Amino acid sequence: MSAPDPTPPAGHPTRRRDLLGIADLGPDVAGGIDEVMELTDSFVEVSRRPIPKVPALRGKTVASLFFEDSTRTRLSFETAAKRLSADTMTFSVSTSSVKKGESLRDTVETIEAMGVDAIVVRHGSSGVPRQVARWADAAVINAGDGWHEHPTQALLDCYTIRQHRDSLAGAHVAIVGDVKHSRVARSNVAAFTALGARVTLVAPPTLLPPNLDGWPVEVSHDLDAVLGETDVCYLLRMQRERMTEALIPTLREYTATYGLTSRRADRLAKGALIMHPGPMNRGVEIAAEVADRPDAVIVDQVRNGVAVRMAVLFLLLGSGTEWGGDGA
Amino acid sequence: MSAPDPTPPAGHPTRRRDLLGIADLGPDVAGGIDEVMELTDSFVEVSRRPIPKVPALRGKTVASLFFEDSTRTRLSFETAAKRLSADTMTFSVSTSSVKKGESLRDTVETIEAMGVDAIVVRHGSSGVPRQVARWADAAVINAGDGWHEHPTQALLDCYTIRQHRDSLAGAHVAIVGDVKHSRVARSNVAAFTALGARVTLVAPPTLLPPNLDGWPVEVSHDLDAVLGETDVCYLLRMQRERMTEALIPTLREYTATYGLTSRRADRLAKGALIMHPGPMNRGVEIAAEVADRPDAVIVDQVRNGVAVRMAVLFLLLGSGTEWGGDGA
Amino acid sequence: MSAPDPTPPAGHPTRRRDLLGIADLGPDVAGGIDEVMELTDSFVEVSRRPIPKVPALRGKTVASLFFEDSTRTRLSFETAAKRLSADTMTFSVSTSSVKKGESLRDTVETIEAMGVDAIVVRHGSSGVPRQVARWADAAVINAGDGWHEHPTQALLDCYTIRQHRDSLAGAHVAIVGDVKHSRVARSNVAAFTALGARVTLVAPPTLLPPNLDGWPVEVSHDLDAVLGETDVCYLLRMQRERMTEALIPTLREYTATYGLTSRRADRLAKGALIMHPGPMNRGVEIAAEVADRPDAVIVDQVRNGVAVRMAVLFLLLGSGTEWGGDGA
Repeated sequence: MSAPDPTPPAGHPTRRRDLLGIADLGPDVAGGIDEVMELTDSFVEVSRRPIPKVPALRGKTVASLFFEDSTRTRLSFETAAKRLSADTMTFSVSTSSVKKGESLRDTVETIEAMGVDAIVVRHGSSGVPRQVARWADAAVINAGDGWHEHPTQALLDCYTIRQHRDSLAGAHVAIVGDVKHSRVARSNVAAFTALGARVTLVAPPTLLPPNLDGWPVEVSHDLDAVLGETDVCYLLRMQRERMTEALIPTLREYTATYGLTSRRADRLAKGALIMHPGPMNRGVEIAAEVADRPDAVIVDQVRNGVAVRMAVLFLLLGSGTEWGGDGA
Repeated sequence: MSAPDPTPPAGHPTRRRDLLGIADLGPDVAGGIDEVMELTDSFVEVSRRPIPKVPALRGKTVASLFFEDSTRTRLSFETAAKRLSADTMTFSVSTSSVKKGESLRDTVETIEAMGVDAIVVRHGSSGVPRQVARWADAAVINAGDGWHEHPTQALLDCYTIRQHRDSLAGAHVAIVGDVKHSRVARSNVAAFTALGARVTLVAPPTLLPPNLDGWPVEVSHDLDAVLGETDVCYLLRMQRERMTEALIPTLREYTATYGLTSRRADRLAKGALIMHPGPMNRGVEIAAEVADRPDAVIVDQVRNGVAVRMAVLFLLLGSGTEWGGDGA
Repeated sequence: MSAPDPTPPAGHPTRRRDLLGIADLGPDVAGGIDEVMELTDSFVEVSRRPIPKVPALRGKTVASLFFEDSTRTRLSFETAAKRLSADTMTFSVSTSSVKKGESLRDTVETIEAMGVDAIVVRHGSSGVPRQVARWADAAVINAGDGWHEHPTQALLDCYTIRQHRDSLAGAHVAIVGDVKHSRVARSNVAAFTALGARVTLVAPPTLLPPNLDGWPVEVSHDLDAVLGETDVCYLLRMQRERMTEALIPTLREYTATYGLTSRRADRLAKGALIMHPGPMNRGVEIAAEVADRPDAVIVDQVRNGVAVRMAVLFLLLGSGTEWGGDGA
């Protein structure tokens, strides 16, 4: 798309309320993802303008409610909101009433009473964003909850892959590492397979969920066996604490078996993409020099994150009336 | 009021400089409160618009200088400032020169030199906002100082009560709990009685100020005796530390005697309001289910807080020249 | 200058990329400083308007990346950015991926991928801003790195002196105190001497750099001997930790020998300026009552800081296309 202003696709459905997981993209998940991708195209184009702003959400307020620190994700959402001309409100949990014993529900109702249109929630426990959505009239976006979901990460990953190949249909994606504790893996398995990709989880048994019934994936414990046939090698962040929990022997041993070293990266098929949700532990799950190869699209993932989140905010909050402004 | 843009009441007095306590509303406190209430009506109307903003304070900067954490109060002021199109500046004490031994006066002069028009101050010690006002040319608003005053809380409480009854004249308000350490209680006693309400403080002797001479209030140690005849039951937050200070035996015992339990709430007169300045300790000073009753207007208090603070900022900073914009 | 909108001086050079030290102002440092000063005149004029804003950098984003706390410097830059209509993004290191082991380079690339036009860096280690500039396409401004440089401080100091005397040529500036650990001293020596001033460093031997070869300065260990002949007495902040490091015997003794007491200030020549980069330790390097004398221009330094930083941001980011807006 190259229109001067992003135009909602024809047949724009009625406003959706929340994005808590990939399933919220509708009964036709692939169609829902496609809709976000198309809108993202427009916002990527906006981001390249000298003044990368549109007035689409002027007068709206987007609140960040982060119970886990993540400057990177919070700034991505807040940048997206500002480019849509929305106001932002950062509810910093560490200095807030939450520490004074206020219930989560009262916190949510307080934020909402100040006049908030969307709440972006990150929390260490699965299901908290869904609880927030039950209490709030505002749109709720899950920015990561426990081991559960992180849907905008999956959307930006889909977008980044599609910048390099027409479609995910038939692509083979290896998701490598600590799948068990990864909300990124869960959202990405749902999104990638909905778009027709074949997904292989590559991890030691201790880092896989205890029960994979119903996951539309293959499993391997041998990265070297999988490498040559992947189109996308998606590495998950390895947390140091997995070592003290005795889920891996040592980081060094993890790297030896599951790290994307230079030697392994050389064996990837030509054109295969290397991805990582960040922040990277260079030298652990990915070698420092591998992260800087041209096929590593990790910085593109961050860049696309802003445009994808603009698309999500616009789909949840935008309406015909504010649309069609003057582009600034 | 329902005019599309708030219009300053006729005879708008010359600009006031500070709001440090209820007495700053003028020699005729009731008239001063009325003026804020009228302007608040207009800003409530603004808050309901699709784009809830007016250009009234464009180019002005409102700085928050909070020595005590209070995300809730700070965001309420900052949201109010943004809706008036002012810029905001958060001076976070925990990462600032204050920790490097800079004097309060130098901090204030530094903030002001950066070009600030209003300073919103919260501090654990009574009288600090008055000190700040002596040093600053900018308007100073007290957002809570020690046990002294919290005038915008009282104003939003007056506004919330007036949404439910024409006037406070003749109303009976019970303020229940830790009056001794409460700036909210002090500001509310001044505001409610100025408007003609009858106020009863309900607390154990240990939680009342040692000397009540000159307070225009009645005192009771028996919530049950007062309940049936109150129009407003205003509960104060019970701090856990009052227990270690031996001012109350246990929280449980406090709740048994002074908590608004469901049984007690049932005995309130029809139409009586339940209020709390937040954040609530559900299960201590107020039962969880009581906080969710329709007569509990606690979320309305938060909502009205933004409009009341818009009114205060406008009265202190607004002038004819910026007024009368296009509503966006 | 008094034009309604600041106009770039004729012959405006091609866009510079970074301001890491005074030497970045060009081969003709004095000419580079003059250019900033002229532009600062225009922005001082903007700051006095009822709506102190210009649209010069609309659509640009300025990120603050502060590895050392400095609310004062960060707010000065962010205020400058907002007055130029740029958006700001605060990358708070204490809650960021840096704590999760992310490399500085990945942090910089992540910030930049979100669409940032300038990065303002403060770091405890010398040379970090230069490293950041190597990795980033965005303009990089050094807001203080270790004991190395703090160029915008020197520029605002030059501007403040020039408000009181036509030129620095021939002026005698005494820089008093902990020169060894001071980036302010290093940038100011470079800037003041480039403009033709004579600089004397006044400090005990323990607080001077071990090697002063190539510094175009005189050195004295006797403040009293220098006082009567200085035009500017520039005091550096004394850090309490210099005492535990045994670089000074006690703060009291330091004050007795190198503090600007009232008695010493009385001996300054008429019209001599007293300066300090802040935050001050009143009673240590400067007596409380001296800081409040009319010849102490410390608050002016802060005030000018905003306009100087507007000039620097404009020189690094501005271009013909956004310029010439409607002044708001």
